[in-house]
Amino acid sequence: MSSSFGSLLTITTFGESHGPAVGVILDGCPPGIAVSAALVQLDLDRRRPGQSAVTTQRAEADEAEILSGVFEGVTTGAPIAVIVRSVDARPQDYANLKDLFRPGHADYTYWKKYGVRDHRGSGRASGRETVGRVAAGAIARAILAGAGARVRAYTVQVGDLVATGRDLDYAEANPVRCPDREKAPLMERAIHAARDAGDSLGGVVEILATGVPAGLGDPVMDKLDASLAAGLMSIGAVKGFEVGEGFASARLRGSEMNDRMSRRGFETNHAGGILGGISTGEPIVARIAVKPPSSIAIPQRTVDRRGEEREFRIEGRHDPCLCPRVVPVAEAMTCLTLAGALLRQRAIEGFRPRTDP
Amino acid sequence: MSSSFGSLLTITTFGESHGPAVGVILDGCPPGIAVSAALVQLDLDRRRPGQSAVTTQRAEADEAEILSGVFEGVTTGAPIAVIVRSVDARPQDYANLKDLFRPGHADYTYWKKYGVRDHRGSGRASGRETVGRVAAGAIARAILAGAGARVRAYTVQVGDLVATGRDLDYAEANPVRCPDREKAPLMERAIHAARDAGDSLGGVVEILATGVPAGLGDPVMDKLDASLAAGLMSIGAVKGFEVGEGFASARLRGSEMNDRMSRRGFETNHAGGILGGISTGEPIVARIAVKPPSSIAIPQRTVDRRGEEREFRIEGRHDPCLCPRVVPVAEAMTCLTLAGALLRQRAIEGFRPRTDP
Amino acid sequence: MSSSFGSLLTITTFGESHGPAVGVILDGCPPGIAVSAALVQLDLDRRRPGQSAVTTQRAEADEAEILSGVFEGVTTGAPIAVIVRSVDARPQDYANLKDLFRPGHADYTYWKKYGVRDHRGSGRASGRETVGRVAAGAIARAILAGAGARVRAYTVQVGDLVATGRDLDYAEANPVRCPDREKAPLMERAIHAARDAGDSLGGVVEILATGVPAGLGDPVMDKLDASLAAGLMSIGAVKGFEVGEGFASARLRGSEMNDRMSRRGFETNHAGGILGGISTGEPIVARIAVKPPSSIAIPQRTVDRRGEEREFRIEGRHDPCLCPRVVPVAEAMTCLTLAGALLRQRAIEGFRPRTDP
Amino acid sequence: MSSSFGSLLTITTFGESHGPAVGVILDGCPPGIAVSAALVQLDLDRRRPGQSAVTTQRAEADEAEILSGVFEGVTTGAPIAVIVRSVDARPQDYANLKDLFRPGHADYTYWKKYGVRDHRGSGRASGRETVGRVAAGAIARAILAGAGARVRAYTVQVGDLVATGRDLDYAEANPVRCPDREKAPLMERAIHAARDAGDSLGGVVEILATGVPAGLGDPVMDKLDASLAAGLMSIGAVKGFEVGEGFASARLRGSEMNDRMSRRGFETNHAGGILGGISTGEPIVARIAVKPPSSIAIPQRTVDRRGEEREFRIEGRHDPCLCPRVVPVAEAMTCLTLAGALLRQRAIEGFRPRTDP
Repeated sequence: MSSSFGSLLTITTFGESHGPAVGVILDGCPPGIAVSAALVQLDLDRRRPGQSAVTTQRAEADEAEILSGVFEGVTTGAPIAVIVRSVDARPQDYANLKDLFRPGHADYTYWKKYGVRDHRGSGRASGRETVGRVAAGAIARAILAGAGARVRAYTVQVGDLVATGRDLDYAEANPVRCPDREKAPLMERAIHAARDAGDSLGGVVEILATGVPAGLGDPVMDKLDASLAAGLMSIGAVKGFEVGEGFASARLRGSEMNDRMSRRGFETNHAGGILGGISTGEPIVARIAVKPPSSIAIPQRTVDRRGEEREFRIEGRHDPCLCPRVVPVAEAMTCLTLAGALLRQRAIEGFRPRTDP
Repeated sequence: MSSSFGSLLTITTFGESHGPAVGVILDGCPPGIAVSAALVQLDLDRRRPGQSAVTTQRAEADEAEILSGVFEGVTTGAPIAVIVRSVDARPQDYANLKDLFRPGHADYTYWKKYGVRDHRGSGRASGRETVGRVAAGAIARAILAGAGARVRAYTVQVGDLVATGRDLDYAEANPVRCPDREKAPLMERAIHAARDAGDSLGGVVEILATGVPAGLGDPVMDKLDASLAAGLMSIGAVKGFEVGEGFASARLRGSEMNDRMSRRGFETNHAGGILGGISTGEPIVARIAVKPPSSIAIPQRTVDRRGEEREFRIEGRHDPCLCPRVVPVAEAMTCLTLAGALLRQRAIEGFRPRTDP
Repeated sequence: MSSSFGSLLTITTFGESHGPAVGVILDGCPPGIAVSAALVQLDLDRRRPGQSAVTTQRAEADEAEILSGVFEGVTTGAPIAVIVRSVDARPQDYANLKDLFRPGHADYTYWKKYGVRDHRGSGRASGRETVGRVAAGAIARAILAGAGARVRAYTVQVGDLVATGRDLDYAEANPVRCPDREKAPLMERAIHAARDAGDSLGGVVEILATGVPAGLGDPVMDKLDASLAAGLMSIGAVKGFEVGEGFASARLRGSEMNDRMSRRGFETNHAGGILGGISTGEPIVARIAVKPPSSIAIPQRTVDRRGEEREFRIEGRHDPCLCPRVVPVAEAMTCLTLAGALLRQRAIEGFRPRTDP
Repeated sequence: MSSSFGSLLTITTFGESHGPAVGVILDGCPPGIAVSAALVQLDLDRRRPGQSAVTTQRAEADEAEILSGVFEGVTTGAPIAVIVRSVDARPQDYANLKDLFRPGHADYTYWKKYGVRDHRGSGRASGRETVGRVAAGAIARAILAGAGARVRAYTVQVGDLVATGRDLDYAEANPVRCPDREKAPLMERAIHAARDAGDSLGGVVEILATGVPAGLGDPVMDKLDASLAAGLMSIGAVKGFEVGEGFASARLRGSEMNDRMSRRGFETNHAGGILGGISTGEPIVARIAVKPPSSIAIPQRTVDRRGEEREFRIEGRHDPCLCPRVVPVAEAMTCLTLAGALLRQRAIEGFRPRTDP
């Protein structure tokens, strides 16, 4: 289904950039999980625009309201609906783009698919849709926390700058969300420079899930890494996904790639925590490629609905690099995938013959 | 569901490496598609082991039998079951690996997940499972052909060797399935050398879909690229997926990445034929990273079910590089994804207001 | 998924009886359907309590707000979220029932399933959940109208009183929603008498879908009647479903049951418009059994969470017979089922060889 | 999906009446369940035609072969494929019916839906499709047995004859599968008489599930009774479903219908073991209406594909009353539904706060 993700634990998001509200229904959440609007707000605040000079300067409060599924502070097993009202909608900003197909955006493809589209601020294709993902992800994060698992994401590349350090606390303390103390300021400067030039920068976000028990993920079609790929590739602007060594594994030999096991467990983690589509118990490590934002201030040429060529310039407040804002969304999709896999595994655990000596 | 892929057009595969048969049910196939066992066999023969010196020397006839859903040469709309009987099963080859967790394989994770496993030739985690995918993919290919679309895949990297040429007819004429006339022989030599050293090589496979109409793919969660990622990442040994510029887009600026439109249509295709999760009408271009096969002849150390460390050596006939054999499987998953998206789009086309002037 | 219905056209409802709001996301709606809050309100007003003396006297405005998926008066293909805020919530009415398992209600089973429950006004198990179904059903009704199909439901039995007339315009003009001009006033009187006695009455609602084209419904598992059964049995208090002759067919002989075809088409419609799970083009006729409401004023004995036996009396405003209020919900579930089947059929129509001479 | 049933535990069946084989894939089966071809055969033999004079005299061995998912006597968690080869196919019996739309059959509707059909012995619409359901149901039965639950079905009505006794052991000992020692022989005689008259009889089958723990079934859309209805209504010839008092509840008052709870538990079971869509722990009791078989020897009039009216007579071996053969299929669909619900409940049990004092 177009706007749903997950099977046993499912989100369905709704909302357009400039509609009255965006939101989500999280269905299949187990009962007894402590959830509050404040908990959801924590993650929404991390996604919110206007947090720093490297992101869009739109001011959106993004205040979450939980409409259902939580009673006396805990989930009841009923679907949890969360909505966020729009307050800073300025549809007039987009009137001049009504008939244009902006390069890099989904204007043309929505038009070809549906024959009608809400053109205001990318409509349904807006990054604002991720509000619902992040709200639901906060609850999935709480489910995982109960099982001892934790998910974090952070920027590891902006343009040509590649982070090597992994100081994860620092990542949340700088506007680029980069865990490398040396590279973070350089990345920040590069983003400012691109924005000043009316241009934008791509990058890479890494996702790290620790404390994930072995055995999660269904083999064959619902491989854990295939599900992660589906979830993360469904985030706008993401053009690639890799797990463990990823594309680098193309250059490795089997003797280098194989993770040897000893009495102490796995001695390396080239696999990135997943073998045969099932978690190994090692940290899950994945990366996604984030393209440079399509909304740039440099004048561009394109065509309109009648096929006429026109030059235009995108006005308004846009992210010069999406990585810092993709971070909480990537965490959300990872949390939802892992929590769903955890629930599926719970379904069969009682049947599993004892595995250990 | 663990062994199913797709929603409107769905495959469910079954079978273990050394069980009596492997196969697939393709459900949701529209009626009136000309299908025969011979058509299915064409693709199965491309997947079959033992085709050349760079793949495993196991001799499997892999003869397809269609059990249902085809009547008087055309599909009827009923589910199409295809099975392939096993003929070259040699379970005794694996007796010594019964209790071992082979590095790089799914032995340990199946054990942790299910507490029981069919250890013979990787059991359910075997590449032999892809027989069902390829059989169903041949039918999806026929559906796409009716709409003018064509899907091809080919090896573009083996180890450090990267293809630049794209002579697609040549790709099917050399054992590496590489479309670069200069690099193909070098890749072949590299694979032989790795095998002679008891080792294996990784690589990259590219997928190209031409003639795909604009408008396929559901935005948001079922983005066409997210679905392709899910399908392709569900193939064993695949560690990464990218579309269009993919990970290279991290180094691009918006002004470089955006595909400008003129009266003649898109002037470039950095997006890889998909914008906002919907096909643009341009060729869809994706790549997958294929890890080096885990089954190598070099002695390795690992642990057994009791946690005891043991050295072992994998005997038998194994692929030194998976790329040539991943090619038809990648095509199958791409065909199934695109044909499913085509069906979904047909469902709404009648409702779509006219899009063109 | 617990709160979702449908595959290609899907609703997901949320909300508890005394939570801040109830609502629905309708996903998969084709573009270009004229939809407005007023259109949705029409059906919601028919579902609303307090419409007559035979239904509960709670006054709920049930004002629908469309949050997404509609732009400039038509659907865009994006998910349509509709919410209805609660205004007449009186949770204090239920404080004394907090720990009790009311007979006939889902109190005990939610408790056993989840170990926690929102006890206020039946919580998630409340009939108020159907607000979302009816809102989405109004849009499905509009999809069907475009294909020339129309769905109506009406009360054909209350207690021992069985309607024989089928004056469908009259059905909407009397509080019982009964299409029999003689029986309707008797039913009304019977309902008043039961309420005055502190008791309640069961009944039967019939559903009639006309103008449904032949060919809808997938055979085997997703038979059109099986899908209708699933949708209608998911309405609270519904204890039975039948199509065409239904349970009466048990007493018929094949020679009586078979619908003969002549040049003019089907000569009878014992099948109720569905053969082999696929619509015949004849009117679809189904009936559902509606149990007497469990909330009665007569004092009852039951147990509480600690297993202690207690006598209690349900206070407040309750429906003495659910049939009139089930009518719009039954229509909604039927519209959603048929519109979904219509979309699925559209997906394959282009492939279908010509069927007529 | 057309040929799939269930979500966490899923079957997908395939096969036409006169194709080379029919079968099923059961996916999502937990590991460690003892399963063998002999176990599956037990239920298949109960479904098999030719068991007595009241069923069709076709002789089908219906020998099950398990192709996957079972290793060393237990399930592995992998999909279980079971096929049954056709041996008594006589397609020539049907040549004269090639262009006819037989009354009561799905000939016309398949034609309208797909524009092409396998006309031999009803093709995909044949009762032979249920072989796959019964094979998978046998495994679901084993899953339930491990949880202490047991499912039985039996004929409680044939034509006007209604069983009152419930001697379930006797039900399996007489050809009608009726648990009433007095009515069974009368039913048998009535069936013979109908067949001798070239006609057929309808009936009612009751399903009883005992030992089902409280808490199974998802409320709202996936109510346990809605899922049972979907599964049972998907069996060919079934025209109605009811649970507990079913249609009789229309005549009851709330004070009669409500099941009072005391310290000993529920004192009655008018609900039929399900409240709010969730099992109560009491026996689940449901009934299905089975129409008289459409294949009767009496000459009938109908039309052919060109719309020409023609008289015809169905030759061959057909069931004069379907109830005895529906019994094992109804059990299978019930077992699959309950086992799936059991797995879903296992997924959330670990999260459930303690429910008992």
